[in-house]
Amino acid sequence: MSDILNTQSPHHVVIVGGGFGGLYAAKTLGRSSVKVTLIDKRNFHLFQPLLYQVATGSLSPGDIASPLRSVLRDNKNTQVLMGEVVDLNPNENKLVLNNGELNYDTLIVATGVSHHYFGNDQWATLAPGLKTVEDALEMRRRIFSAFEAAEKETDPEKRQALLTFVVVGGGPTGVELAGALAEIAYRILKEEFRSIDTSETQILLLEGMDRILPPFPPELSAEAQKGLEHLGVTVRTKTLVTNIDNQVVTLKSGEEIEQISAQTILWAAGVKGSKMGEAIARTTGAQLDRVGRVMVEPNLTVPNHPNIFVIGDLANFSHQGDQPLPGVAPVAQQQGIYVAKLIQKRLKAQTLPPFHYIDYGSLAVIGRNQAVVNLNYLKFSGLFAWLAWVFVHVFFLIEFDNKLLVMIQWAWSYFTNQGGARLITNEGLSGKNNNIEISTSMGDKNTVQV
Amino acid sequence: MSDILNTQSPHHVVIVGGGFGGLYAAKTLGRSSVKVTLIDKRNFHLFQPLLYQVATGSLSPGDIASPLRSVLRDNKNTQVLMGEVVDLNPNENKLVLNNGELNYDTLIVATGVSHHYFGNDQWATLAPGLKTVEDALEMRRRIFSAFEAAEKETDPEKRQALLTFVVVGGGPTGVELAGALAEIAYRILKEEFRSIDTSETQILLLEGMDRILPPFPPELSAEAQKGLEHLGVTVRTKTLVTNIDNQVVTLKSGEEIEQISAQTILWAAGVKGSKMGEAIARTTGAQLDRVGRVMVEPNLTVPNHPNIFVIGDLANFSHQGDQPLPGVAPVAQQQGIYVAKLIQKRLKAQTLPPFHYIDYGSLAVIGRNQAVVNLNYLKFSGLFAWLAWVFVHVFFLIEFDNKLLVMIQWAWSYFTNQGGARLITNEGLSGKNNNIEISTSMGDKNTVQV
Repeated sequence: MSDILNTQSPHHVVIVGGGFGGLYAAKTLGRSSVKVTLIDKRNFHLFQPLLYQVATGSLSPGDIASPLRSVLRDNKNTQVLMGEVVDLNPNENKLVLNNGELNYDTLIVATGVSHHYFGNDQWATLAPGLKTVEDALEMRRRIFSAFEAAEKETDPEKRQALLTFVVVGGGPTGVELAGALAEIAYRILKEEFRSIDTSETQILLLEGMDRILPPFPPELSAEAQKGLEHLGVTVRTKTLVTNIDNQVVTLKSGEEIEQISAQTILWAAGVKGSKMGEAIARTTGAQLDRVGRVMVEPNLTVPNHPNIFVIGDLANFSHQGDQPLPGVAPVAQQQGIYVAKLIQKRLKAQTLPPFHYIDYGSLAVIGRNQAVVNLNYLKFSGLFAWLAWVFVHVFFLIEFDNKLLVMIQWAWSYFTNQGGARLITNEGLSGKNNNIEISTSMGDKNTVQV
Repeated sequence: MSDILNTQSPHHVVIVGGGFGGLYAAKTLGRSSVKVTLIDKRNFHLFQPLLYQVATGSLSPGDIASPLRSVLRDNKNTQVLMGEVVDLNPNENKLVLNNGELNYDTLIVATGVSHHYFGNDQWATLAPGLKTVEDALEMRRRIFSAFEAAEKETDPEKRQALLTFVVVGGGPTGVELAGALAEIAYRILKEEFRSIDTSETQILLLEGMDRILPPFPPELSAEAQKGLEHLGVTVRTKTLVTNIDNQVVTLKSGEEIEQISAQTILWAAGVKGSKMGEAIARTTGAQLDRVGRVMVEPNLTVPNHPNIFVIGDLANFSHQGDQPLPGVAPVAQQQGIYVAKLIQKRLKAQTLPPFHYIDYGSLAVIGRNQAVVNLNYLKFSGLFAWLAWVFVHVFFLIEFDNKLLVMIQWAWSYFTNQGGARLITNEGLSGKNNNIEISTSMGDKNTVQV
């Protein structure tokens, strides 16, 4: 660690990624003597837990995103840079950017994860995932375009395919999407179409394990499934997707093979570490787990590189409990704060005990008035769970940026039953309704726009 | 008109375009005995007067757009179709769609206008205009990307070019954009950058005539110019753009030729009739004016085709005053209502006197606390004009869809000095930061995304 202690002041901390981990690290370092550079490909922090509401048209991207510069405006020791990190040179304490280089004394990597199609990347264009704003707008475009096309479709089979939505993956995101789709089809759009009856919409939620919301206790998984079925969602557990072809999903439950015609297929099944993980492994010799997350030390550093930290979804922290810590916001937040404090301690030649995650519990929303809450000592579901979910999300959302009125607006459209942001935009990306031709291939984040 | 009177009930009115004209026609016909079909390329009505706020990051698209289906939800006689009209067959009372045909008894065309580059369509990619949501998001992307690039630029000349914004056209849209850019550069972003001083930003507003806001009385044009200059905008009247090249604008004032290096060039100079105008002229023999608007009869019909109406920006109504009526929302609204009433009268074998526009006055916003209002009998500017502008826009915006809280939110971010929607999205469209390649060419609406 001598390299850290001997560096001339101000000590330069570079944070890659402005998600929950990176942003909390930056905020915690904001009142310290170090120099901070936060670099992100985007100019905004995205409040991921509500991204599914953009995908389903109840919120606009601007409602859940805050410009990083305005969040960190008052941290005069902090510079925000919009740019992309392409490689790492740990021996020279240097980052390689798409447009230059950046030296650091301490590096915090918080670049998160992207979709994982388990070796079937060609599915990405057929079944988009939900990580970026563009992902959400593409899902929104597909969802509402399907209803529009169904309204004009006269062939009953094609119409049913247009009104069939398959959500792959029964984790929190899949449950949220399926529940929101049910709200859209059976409530919000009900009175708006003349040729079709949107209550004929079929929504399938597919999960490979024996229950949805696997991280939750079995009783809450059962509650969640009951809640979704009550909303009209068909939940299929122990069901694997073996193929996705244009508008046809092939399922395998036990020995049974089944094909379902669906216009809209949404991917919520898996994630893999972002590219920075590979760069770290290649340049530092760090181990990656099978989904490309970096195996970190108890203090969140990369082995043998005490001045390189990996936090948040990209980190595999396996020093607490029998499982690695889950990829959720609270873990990233606590890790960001821990690392920031450790850096400050080190500058005083002190240190901190290993990182320890304090689990305040977990929540998952199912739909209007329904959620499940696991506070470990207390488990509950239904309306109170939903209110708890709303409270927590309002609380965190307004913490960064004053989005209080956004939340009031959201509550308003909730009570007035409107989905005010149900816009079909960027049709240009579909290459259909205008003269823009697009050839897509996989981006780093698998942000695929067809 | 016998064809109209003798058609078997229900009389089918087809409205093309869900802007102010088409939507008011549909709303007025909603409580009548006719069958109404509203067809639009998009699934939402866009509140155009506030589109510049999306382009400058203070509102999100969802804040100023309402799904047409939800606006017309309770009009059970009305079907909304998302589709594109490609041609017209007046002899068979038939519309040709991109995906089929549609018969009408009465046709209302309200497809509006698109950008006009005066024969320099290649400028469209260099200087995007502001008509669609995608246009606004592209402007937003360019504006905020320019500041991000400037923060990283070390070459002083390049940096100054990145911090130079040229708005072409001194009409209401150009004035609004220039004023909003001044707010962004000199107020909102002021504390957020570390390398650049955003107050070094140059904002030029170019107008070919001898004053900005030509439709307004000279004293208000002078007030508007004073207001913009007070905000920091350089206003250049009697100045023509003779060429736009990559990041260089060539100006001609009198005999003087001048070149200005600017990364961001925004087009607010001219509009031309949308393609439906050509189809109407070709198939009905109607005359188009020099910008492609349809010359209509005093009752807004196309000559010799009493069952085809053209309303709103696409109509050239020259039967009142020495100028054709301006392309503003109130004209379109009053024309939509008039046509709807005339259709109902005709079904009772009655008619209406010619259309007469009632001008309640006009407003243009300059910036925070500043606007100009011309009520004909009363002209004023400054804070009261701005409050009048806000009131009118809030009033109209909440009329369609309950966007009251949107406006509260907007007021909030106004008072808290935030521009909450300053997101740089759809970078994919730039073809730079990911693997999507785009080849652009002119679309109907000149929606060009580079």
